[in-house]
Amino acid sequence: MIQNKYKVVVIGAGFGGLWVAKALAHSDYEAIFIDKNNYHTFLPLLYQVSAAEVSPEQIASPVRSILRSKKNIQFIRGEVSQINYSKKVIVCLGQEIPFDYLIVSAGSVNHYFEIPGAGKFAFPLKTLDDAMVLRNHILTCFERASFINDEEQRKRLLTIVIAGGGPTGVEFAGALAELIAGPLKKDFPELKNEKIALHLIEASNNLIGMYHASLGQYTQKQLEKKGVHVHCNAKVNAIDASGVHLHDGSVLPAETVVWTAGVKGRLVSNDLTIQTVPDGRIVVDEFCRISGYTDVFVIGDLACFIQDGKPLPMIAPVAMQQGKYVGRLLKRLLKGKKVKPFRYSDRGGMVAIGRNKAVSQIAGMHIKGYVAWIIWIFIHILYLIGFKNKIFVMINWVWSYIFFEKSVRLILPGCCDDPHGDLCLHRGRSCKG
Amino acid sequence: MIQNKYKVVVIGAGFGGLWVAKALAHSDYEAIFIDKNNYHTFLPLLYQVSAAEVSPEQIASPVRSILRSKKNIQFIRGEVSQINYSKKVIVCLGQEIPFDYLIVSAGSVNHYFEIPGAGKFAFPLKTLDDAMVLRNHILTCFERASFINDEEQRKRLLTIVIAGGGPTGVEFAGALAELIAGPLKKDFPELKNEKIALHLIEASNNLIGMYHASLGQYTQKQLEKKGVHVHCNAKVNAIDASGVHLHDGSVLPAETVVWTAGVKGRLVSNDLTIQTVPDGRIVVDEFCRISGYTDVFVIGDLACFIQDGKPLPMIAPVAMQQGKYVGRLLKRLLKGKKVKPFRYSDRGGMVAIGRNKAVSQIAGMHIKGYVAWIIWIFIHILYLIGFKNKIFVMINWVWSYIFFEKSVRLILPGCCDDPHGDLCLHRGRSCKG
Repeated sequence: MIQNKYKVVVIGAGFGGLWVAKALAHSDYEAIFIDKNNYHTFLPLLYQVSAAEVSPEQIASPVRSILRSKKNIQFIRGEVSQINYSKKVIVCLGQEIPFDYLIVSAGSVNHYFEIPGAGKFAFPLKTLDDAMVLRNHILTCFERASFINDEEQRKRLLTIVIAGGGPTGVEFAGALAELIAGPLKKDFPELKNEKIALHLIEASNNLIGMYHASLGQYTQKQLEKKGVHVHCNAKVNAIDASGVHLHDGSVLPAETVVWTAGVKGRLVSNDLTIQTVPDGRIVVDEFCRISGYTDVFVIGDLACFIQDGKPLPMIAPVAMQQGKYVGRLLKRLLKGKKVKPFRYSDRGGMVAIGRNKAVSQIAGMHIKGYVAWIIWIFIHILYLIGFKNKIFVMINWVWSYIFFEKSVRLILPGCCDDPHGDLCLHRGRSCKG
Repeated sequence: MIQNKYKVVVIGAGFGGLWVAKALAHSDYEAIFIDKNNYHTFLPLLYQVSAAEVSPEQIASPVRSILRSKKNIQFIRGEVSQINYSKKVIVCLGQEIPFDYLIVSAGSVNHYFEIPGAGKFAFPLKTLDDAMVLRNHILTCFERASFINDEEQRKRLLTIVIAGGGPTGVEFAGALAELIAGPLKKDFPELKNEKIALHLIEASNNLIGMYHASLGQYTQKQLEKKGVHVHCNAKVNAIDASGVHLHDGSVLPAETVVWTAGVKGRLVSNDLTIQTVPDGRIVVDEFCRISGYTDVFVIGDLACFIQDGKPLPMIAPVAMQQGKYVGRLLKRLLKGKKVKPFRYSDRGGMVAIGRNKAVSQIAGMHIKGYVAWIIWIFIHILYLIGFKNKIFVMINWVWSYIFFEKSVRLILPGCCDDPHGDLCLHRGRSCKG
C-alpha cells in the first residue's frame, strides 16, 4: 500500500456504511470499515425472521465478502470504544486507529422513552440476535401452552402485545397473525379451542403515522381482518413480567411484549460535546458533517439532518443516499472539485401487511392492496444483498404463498430458553446457564 | 379419541423416533413423541453447518410439521426426567405420562473416555447448537487473528485440532480445509502470509476404522493433499486452554479443539438396574427390548443390539431400521400376529472427503473418488427431511461447487462470543454476560 494515501475510517456496516464503500471502492483512499458484527443485516426483513418466515442467514451477508473485491478497503470486526477528535484516532479492540476522515454510521438502538420496565421486559426487534430470540420465545410460549394445565397461565402464554404501530410493528403484526392462523394452528391441534390474542398498541390516532391517514386506516382494517386487536390512542404506562399496563389503567396480561415503538441514535463515546437532539441523534450540517468539523461525517439513523425545516426520517433510503453522497464528496475533495450540499430525494415508502396486501406512497400516490404488495416484494428482493439470499428468500415467499407455511419454526439455538422453568427466557426473567 | 387405545410413548425424535412414527401413523395406537428440541436434526450434515456450508435451518425440520398428518400422534417438547417401569409412567416437565409401550430412542452424547479437560475445553459436534457455536468460534478466531499483534497468539488462533478420525472427524476436516483454502483465504488478505494449521488426530493406525483399510489410506492421502496434518497412532492425553497434549509428550497449541472421537448412549434416569455396556448403551434382546421387559424397547444409538456376536454400530441406518421394525412389531402385536426378531441389513456406508472425493463401501465393494462422491450426494439429499431443505441444500452445494464459496460465514448469534476478551467463548473459557 502507498503510505501517503488518506485514511478513511467508517464505523458501521449498515446501509450507510455499505453505500460509502460502494462509492469509495477503487478510489485513492485507504478505508477501514468497522462493525461489531461480521455481517450486514438487511433490516427491512428482520421481522420475517421473528415470524419464522425466513432464516436469519438469508437476510445477512458477510461484510468481508461484500468488501472483498474492493482492494482499498479493509474490515475490522469489533466495537469502537472511543472517538478522539483532537488526536484524530478511534479506539477499537484496545488499539488506536488514525483517520484523516471519519464517517460515523453506527445506526440506532431502541428508544424506550423512560417507560418503566420497557427496556427490561419487552423484546427488542433491532438486531438479528433479537429476531432469533423473539422467534424462539414465541414458539416456546406455544409449546408451553400446549402442555400447561393452568387456564390463566395458558391464556397469558398465548397473548402477544406489540407496542408501536409504525412500519415495523405493522409488518410484524401482519406476519405474526398469518403465522398463528396458518402453521401454528395446524401444528398445535391441542390449542384449537384456545383464544390466541395478538394486540397492536399505538399511541397516536393512526397506524404508520408518516403515511397518509387513508393508508393508516386501510392498514388497520386489514390487520383487524386478520384478527389483530389494534388499539390506537393507547399509551403504554409500564411493562412488567405480567404484561402491559396502559394509561387508561387497563392491563393486558401477556408473556410476550415486543417493542417497536421507537429508536434513537446509537452514540459512540467521544471526546467532544456534540449537539444531539432528544432522540440521541447528532445534528449535522448540509454536508453531513458535525458542525465545526471538516473531517467528521455522520450519516444514517445517527444523523439528524434538517431538510426543509424538518429532520429526515430514520430509514434505510436516507442512510443509503447519505452514504453514497459522502463517499462521492470525499472523491471530489481529492480532485479539488467543489461539493454541493446533501439533499434527500424521497422516493416514497411502503409497508407490507401480509398476503396480497401492502400500502405504499410513491411520488405522491397512495397505493393499497395487491399492487402495493407486488411493488413491496420487488423492491425488497432488489435491495436484499447477496444473489443467493435473493433466491432463498424468493423460494421461501413462494413456498409460504402456495402452502400457507412458514417453515423456519425452529427453537434454535436453544441456549437462551428454558423449557423447564416456570418463567420464560431473557428479558429480565429466568434463563438457564 | 377412543379411550381404550394403547398408549405408546416415544422418547426422541431422531432417526429412530421418526421411523417409528412413520410405521405407527394412522394405526390403532395413540402415540406421544417427546423431544427436548422442537425440530429433528439431520445429523449426517451437521459438520457442514460448522464449516459454514449450509445454514442450521436447512438441516432441521420442525417435528410438529413432520407429525402433523399423523392424527394419532402427539408431540411434547421437553426432557424426560424419569422413567418408572413398575408404574409404567414417564415424567416430563413435572407431569406423569402413562404408557403401555415405551420406545426409548434418546440417542447419544459425546464420550470423552475420561481424558482430562476434553469435556471442558474441546468443542463438541453433536447438536445443532454445538455446530453453530463451533462455526462462530472458528470465524471469531480468524477475525481476532487478523487484528492481533502477538505472533504466537496469532499462530494459536489459526490452529485447529480435530480429535477423532472417524467419519465425522474426516468429513469435518475435509470441509474445513476447503473453507480455509477458499473463502477464508480470500476474506482475510491480512493473513495471506500466515500459516493456518489443521490437524486430525486418530488413536488407531487408520482413519475411518470401520471401513476397509484401503479406503482409510485413500482418505488420509486426500486429506493431506488438502493440507490437513493427519496424525495416526496419536493419542490425546489431555486438553486444556492452551491446546492438545499428546501421549508422546508433544503439545499442539490451538485455540480450537474439536471432539469427534467417540459417543456413548444418552441414558434417561430410570428406576431399574439395567444392563449397560461400557459405552453407556443399553443391552437389548432380539426384539430390541430391554431383557425381561415385554413393553420397553430401546433403539438407535442408545441400544446395544448384538448381531453375529458383535454390537451394531451407532449409525443412522441402524436407528431407522430399528424404528421401522419396532413400529411394525407393535402393529403386528395388536393383530395377534407373530413377530420375527430384528436383523440389521447393512447397506453400506460412505464418507465425504470434499470436492469430488468420497469413499463408500456398498455390498462389499470399495468405491473411491468421484463416483463415491456422487453416491454420497444422492443419498444425503434423498434422506434429508423436508422438500424445501433439499432444494436449499442443493443450491448451496451447487453454489459452492461452482464458486468455491461457503456462504454462511456469519458469527451468529453473537451472544456466545466475546470480541473484546483476550480469551474466547464457551468451553470453560470466558463468555460475556
